[in-house]
Amino acid sequence: MTDWTLEPVAAIDGDAVAAAQARQAQLTKPPGSLGRLESLAESFAGWQGRTRPQLSLIDVCVFAADHGVAARGVSAFPQAVTAQMIANFAGGGAAVSVLAGEHGARLAVVNMGIVGTLVESAGVIDCTVASGTADFTHGPAMTDATLVAALAAGRAQVDSAAQLFIGGEMGIGNTTSAAAMLAALTDARPADVVGRGTGVDDAGLARKHAVVAEALARHGPNWSACDEAERARRVLADVGGLEIAALVGAMIGAAQAGVPVLVDGFITTVAALVACRINPGVRDWLGFAHRSAEAGHGIALAALDAAPLLDLGMRLGEGSGAVLAVGLIRSALALHAGMATFADAGVDVE
Amino acid sequence: MTDWTLEPVAAIDGDAVAAAQARQAQLTKPPGSLGRLESLAESFAGWQGRTRPQLSLIDVCVFAADHGVAARGVSAFPQAVTAQMIANFAGGGAAVSVLAGEHGARLAVVNMGIVGTLVESAGVIDCTVASGTADFTHGPAMTDATLVAALAAGRAQVDSAAQLFIGGEMGIGNTTSAAAMLAALTDARPADVVGRGTGVDDAGLARKHAVVAEALARHGPNWSACDEAERARRVLADVGGLEIAALVGAMIGAAQAGVPVLVDGFITTVAALVACRINPGVRDWLGFAHRSAEAGHGIALAALDAAPLLDLGMRLGEGSGAVLAVGLIRSALALHAGMATFADAGVDVE
Repeated sequence: MTDWTLEPVAAIDGDAVAAAQARQAQLTKPPGSLGRLESLAESFAGWQGRTRPQLSLIDVCVFAADHGVAARGVSAFPQAVTAQMIANFAGGGAAVSVLAGEHGARLAVVNMGIVGTLVESAGVIDCTVASGTADFTHGPAMTDATLVAALAAGRAQVDSAAQLFIGGEMGIGNTTSAAAMLAALTDARPADVVGRGTGVDDAGLARKHAVVAEALARHGPNWSACDEAERARRVLADVGGLEIAALVGAMIGAAQAGVPVLVDGFITTVAALVACRINPGVRDWLGFAHRSAEAGHGIALAALDAAPLLDLGMRLGEGSGAVLAVGLIRSALALHAGMATFADAGVDVE
Repeated sequence: MTDWTLEPVAAIDGDAVAAAQARQAQLTKPPGSLGRLESLAESFAGWQGRTRPQLSLIDVCVFAADHGVAARGVSAFPQAVTAQMIANFAGGGAAVSVLAGEHGARLAVVNMGIVGTLVESAGVIDCTVASGTADFTHGPAMTDATLVAALAAGRAQVDSAAQLFIGGEMGIGNTTSAAAMLAALTDARPADVVGRGTGVDDAGLARKHAVVAEALARHGPNWSACDEAERARRVLADVGGLEIAALVGAMIGAAQAGVPVLVDGFITTVAALVACRINPGVRDWLGFAHRSAEAGHGIALAALDAAPLLDLGMRLGEGSGAVLAVGLIRSALALHAGMATFADAGVDVE
C-alpha cells in the first residue's frame, strides 16, 4: 500500500470566502434570501481562491466494473449489463451522457475491470485492474495489489485544471457492495443500509440482506484491530468494488490537487466516506448533489454531515444526480457575480 | 366583475402523457430511477401534446406594486424600495434578471401601481391600476373595479405561444398581504402564516401578526356568506395586492391559453391558491418550483396538494426560485428525448 492517499489536501482560501461573503451582503436582496445558493458561491470562492468564482471546466468520470457478488442474485439486471452500459455511456445514450452534454461537461468512461471483454470499446478508457471482484462472501473482493492499482487509476483521471470533478459509477451488484461497506464503517445494521438498487423484488432484497450479513460475519473480525484509516482501506479491499476504489482514489487525488468534487448518490457517497476516513481533509473539498431514494443513502450522508442540494427521488447512479446539480451551481455563481449591489442600483437599505 | 375567469381551462393531452410514459419505460435505466425528472417530462408531454416535449420559449413576468399596509411597519425595507427594485429588474441587476438571462427566458417587468412615480422607467411596462393598495386594516385594499382591471392586466401579459409562464412579484409589505389571504382561505391561524418576509425582527413580526389579525376581524364577516370562488375574489380585493391580483389573472389566463405555469414562492403560491379557488381547472396547468423558507409557504403548498422540486432555503420572491428550476426541467426533457432505449443500446432487460 502506497502512502500518497495520506498526503495533505490543498488549502481552502479563507480570504476569498470572506470576500465572497462580504459581496453577498451587498447584493440587492434581503440578507440570506438566496439560501443555499449563497453558500455555494462562497464555497467555490474558497476552492478557486477568487471573490467571483466561475465554473466552465467540469470533468465527469464514470468508473465501471463487475462484482463477483452478482452471482448471488442481488440485482434486477444480469451481469452482462455492466459491459453493455459501458458502451452506452461512451455512445451517448445513457442518462449521464445526455446530462454531460446538456451541461457542457467532459465525460470520460473508464473500464476498471469486467467479466469477459467489451464488444464495443470505442471511447472507453481501459484501466482494467482485475476481471471484476471476487464474491466477497467467500473471500476478499480484491487483493491489496489490486486495491493499490485501482486507487491510483482513479487518481490518474483527475485533471488538476478542472474546476469540478464528478465521479460516477456503474456495476451490476454494486449497491450490495456499498451497503456492506457502509455497515462496516458506521455500525449501521444490514437492514438499514440494504435497498432495492436497480429495483429488486422482496426476495432479491432478502438475498442482499443475507449477503451483507455474511460478508460482515466473514470479514468483520479482520477489521477490529485496525485504526480508522486502515479499517477503511481493508473494508474497501474486502467488500468493495474496483469502480468504488477508483472513486476513492479520484476523490483523494482531487482534494490534493485542489479540485472540488460534487458527490452523486449512494455508492459515490460511500466512496466519499471511505476517502474521508483514509484522509479526513478530503471532506473540505466535497459538495453533495442529491439525496437518493436508495435506502442507505441517508445514513451515508449523515456519517459525512452532508446536506445535499436536491431531493428528487433519483436512484440511478452514473453521476447523474451530480451532473444535474451543475445547473444550480452555475446559477448560484451567475447570481453572485452578476447581481447589482445596493449602491450600484440605488436601492435603500433601512 | 367579469366572468372570463370562470371560463374553462385548456385540456391536457392524455394520449401524449401515455406515450411519454411508455417511452420512459424503454429508456436505458431502471424503471423510475430518474424520480421526479420522469414525471416532469410526462407532464410537459400532456401540456404540449407531444411525446417528446421541449422547452425553449419561457416568459418570466414580474409584477410589482405598493401596499398601503406598509405604513404599519411590516417590512425590513422602506416602501421606496418597490420603485427602486422595479428599475433594478429592468436594468438587469436583480436576481430574477440574472437568472432569466442565464436560462434564456424573456423577462417582462410590469408596474401595477406604486406610490409616487418611477424615477427610471425604461423597459418597464406600465399597467398602473391604482397608486398602490389602501391599508387593509382600515378598509378594502382595492375596489372591485381595480380588481377587475388588475386581473385583466395579468392575463394580458400571457403570450399563448409561450411554453412556460413564470410569474414573479415585488412589493414592500406583500408577505403581510399574502399571509392575510392565506389565513382567510385556509382557516390557518395568523401565527401559522406570518413569517419574517424580507427579514423583520421580532417586533416587526409581532406587528405583522397584529395586522393580519386585525384584517381578518375587519373583513372576515363580509366573506362568510360567499361561495368558494366568490370568497377568493373578495379576499383578493379586501386584503390582497395589485401585483397578486395580476398574478391570479395571469395564471387563470395561462391555463385557459394552454400555457403551463411554474409557481415560485410564498406569494405566488397564495396567488395560485386564489386562482384555483376561482377556477379549479387551473390546478392542472401548475407546476411548483420550490419550497420557500417563508413560514406560511408549506401551508399554501399543502392547500394545493403541491410537492415542489427544490428546497434550498430561498425566500426572495421575484420568481427567482421558479426561474432557477428551469434548468432542472430542461435536463428532464433532454433525458426524456435524448436517452437511448434498451433496444437501441442492446442492453438486456431480465
